[in-house]
Amino acid sequence: MMNREQATALDQADPLTPFRAEFALPEGIIYLNGNSLGPLPARAAARVAEVAAKEWGEGLIRSWNSAGWYSAPRRLGDKLAGLLGAESGEMVVTDATGLNLFKAVAAALDLRPDRKVIVMEGSNFPTNNYIVQGLARFLDRGHEIRFVEKDEILQAIGPDVAVVALTHAHYKTAHLLDMAGITAAAHAAGALTVWDLCHSAGAVPVDLNGAGADFAVGCSYKYLNGGPGSPAFLFAARRHHASMRQPLSGWWSHATPFAFDRDFQPAEGIARMLTGTQPILSLAGAEAGIDLACRANAAQARAKSSALGDLFIELLESRVTGHGFNLESPRLAAERGGHVALSHPQGYPIMKALIEAGVIGDFRAPDTLRFGFSPLYLRYVDVWDAVAVLAEIMESGRWQEARFQQVEAVT
Amino acid sequence: MMNREQATALDQADPLTPFRAEFALPEGIIYLNGNSLGPLPARAAARVAEVAAKEWGEGLIRSWNSAGWYSAPRRLGDKLAGLLGAESGEMVVTDATGLNLFKAVAAALDLRPDRKVIVMEGSNFPTNNYIVQGLARFLDRGHEIRFVEKDEILQAIGPDVAVVALTHAHYKTAHLLDMAGITAAAHAAGALTVWDLCHSAGAVPVDLNGAGADFAVGCSYKYLNGGPGSPAFLFAARRHHASMRQPLSGWWSHATPFAFDRDFQPAEGIARMLTGTQPILSLAGAEAGIDLACRANAAQARAKSSALGDLFIELLESRVTGHGFNLESPRLAAERGGHVALSHPQGYPIMKALIEAGVIGDFRAPDTLRFGFSPLYLRYVDVWDAVAVLAEIMESGRWQEARFQQVEAVT
Repeated sequence: MMNREQATALDQADPLTPFRAEFALPEGIIYLNGNSLGPLPARAAARVAEVAAKEWGEGLIRSWNSAGWYSAPRRLGDKLAGLLGAESGEMVVTDATGLNLFKAVAAALDLRPDRKVIVMEGSNFPTNNYIVQGLARFLDRGHEIRFVEKDEILQAIGPDVAVVALTHAHYKTAHLLDMAGITAAAHAAGALTVWDLCHSAGAVPVDLNGAGADFAVGCSYKYLNGGPGSPAFLFAARRHHASMRQPLSGWWSHATPFAFDRDFQPAEGIARMLTGTQPILSLAGAEAGIDLACRANAAQARAKSSALGDLFIELLESRVTGHGFNLESPRLAAERGGHVALSHPQGYPIMKALIEAGVIGDFRAPDTLRFGFSPLYLRYVDVWDAVAVLAEIMESGRWQEARFQQVEAVT
Repeated sequence: MMNREQATALDQADPLTPFRAEFALPEGIIYLNGNSLGPLPARAAARVAEVAAKEWGEGLIRSWNSAGWYSAPRRLGDKLAGLLGAESGEMVVTDATGLNLFKAVAAALDLRPDRKVIVMEGSNFPTNNYIVQGLARFLDRGHEIRFVEKDEILQAIGPDVAVVALTHAHYKTAHLLDMAGITAAAHAAGALTVWDLCHSAGAVPVDLNGAGADFAVGCSYKYLNGGPGSPAFLFAARRHHASMRQPLSGWWSHATPFAFDRDFQPAEGIARMLTGTQPILSLAGAEAGIDLACRANAAQARAKSSALGDLFIELLESRVTGHGFNLESPRLAAERGGHVALSHPQGYPIMKALIEAGVIGDFRAPDTLRFGFSPLYLRYVDVWDAVAVLAEIMESGRWQEARFQQVEAVT
């Protein structure tokens, strides 16, 4: 079993160590919830203050052009494209994940008008299911959502399937789906794919075009550290640009938005997946986070995140035995995303006791504890210390004193 | 004709004068574009910096509860409700105007499934038309948008009309529609109304329940001074809450969002018009702006905005004659919103020259110049000085030197 000095030595050898200084991390906290809301990059705080005081305060309306506000969705999309295996002009950063999922699935269904089945994972983060259920209800054309679990996906993809809409890294278990293999199976059956990368971007290497993905969406506030509710991204493969249409067609998706024509004409390219005016202060936070993620070596980030998760599991297996925890994530790092999930019938008060002790993870009903291993600011010694705290809480029985209190968190 | 000293005397007698100190206005600028993007409230800059550094930086994921992030859409909605004649629990501040319009029109159509006509103003801000065109295209059930102009609205409302979706104050001319009268006519015909208050909220008194409105939407970044692209609002009259459904159904509109159920069940009340996670930094700006608007006396704000517009028109009529301007807004203040529109065949270079001289209005193709008279920070002397600058630009012919350059601005 690794001791604390050995963990510290790993940190000293870690090529990503300099990135930790880019974050404003509070004292006395081990933050294992960057899979839900990434911490504050110091540059984000400075940029947001600058956008408010200078760009809004002094530039006023002129900043829509002079400060690059209007072009931000495409500029940020081009930055992210490099990280996620897309080309320039195939991504935008705009709106929220659910809205982008609505647009992407609607566009995909519109490209497959004679098919009625959408394959989704029933245990996926529920908002994805709710969004597609809302779309299907309003289309009212007999679409069926075929809910399956991970081992049933390939056999669920038949000639009646229009769209396969899946999340790459499972929000609860972190289990990774085979993006390339499932996409190939979907294409072989004549279906299109929409990939949700919320729990992948910034933690797991993604090669959208290498996998042949049709559409993808995801958020910028988890491993991309873009800030609470920062705008999401949307990818559409270039081969669909000329024919894709989506229902949330606002003036930013118009071919000539400043002509003020009465009737809608879709823009060329990825702009037709935009809708309208974007929340600029939140976009500024997103840009700071995305810039940091793009500076890091993606392979190094993945290797470190995997190693942190492996260390967590190994330390648990040796130091927190006999307390009723089950590992809900894949044991093999290659099969999981950036977090590790445990189940425990008393998961709720245990997580409460951890948070009170300064180790922040989160709880997902009914019995799941999640611990995120975001690579740019966490240290091996943080993992070592977190497991030491968990061991102490379980051995002392102190978790039983933790009052039951809702720990609401965002995906 | 009023002289400059008389204008200054009006400022000294103005009960709203103290509000000017709440804004961080740049030196040397007369800002007549608060109808497009309101200027920075000093409190907004402080709040946004605080949300970044403390709530995000130190509170991290815990701030979704402890800092009131999760409840922000309903909290801000309740604040705005008091300003717009709604009750607590009938409004939310969330998403963008176009998205809220999509939700509201879709919900209204869902309540009138046997009718196919949507009445809209063809000359409305085009994104409203684009959004409803996108909705109708995807519903694919034969909905027709009946485009009319203001004097044809009442006769267009017949027994085939499902929804009347209009903007209260016209984005170009500022012409005010009769919200109560048109709503009564719609109801008499069995139709529902969706009112866009983008150019009303914060400038023109609105009494949603007094007018019997069914749904309403609007933005927070014009006369509410919420910051670039700050989230929009949505109103739904309580009588529709139990039966209304909207297609952008995410986890924030679910009855039990933290139960992580697979299938969607709509929340009770206005929450079912929410979708998902909100951009918190931009919401913080919106809250600061809304708080300021709610502190002001609405009748005083309207009286001052009208007086500023009247003074602008009177000074124009006496000081800028023979230069080819036409007044495109109603001459009577009671018939117009917070801005005044002029047309001129050379409107583009004239507005460019004005902006270069420090008087910021905006231009709308093909020939409209807009000047906004936002009541909380503008002075009578600003209006006097702005007309003096315009007179000088026209008399000297200096506008002809202004280079043609796109002044993009947001609604």
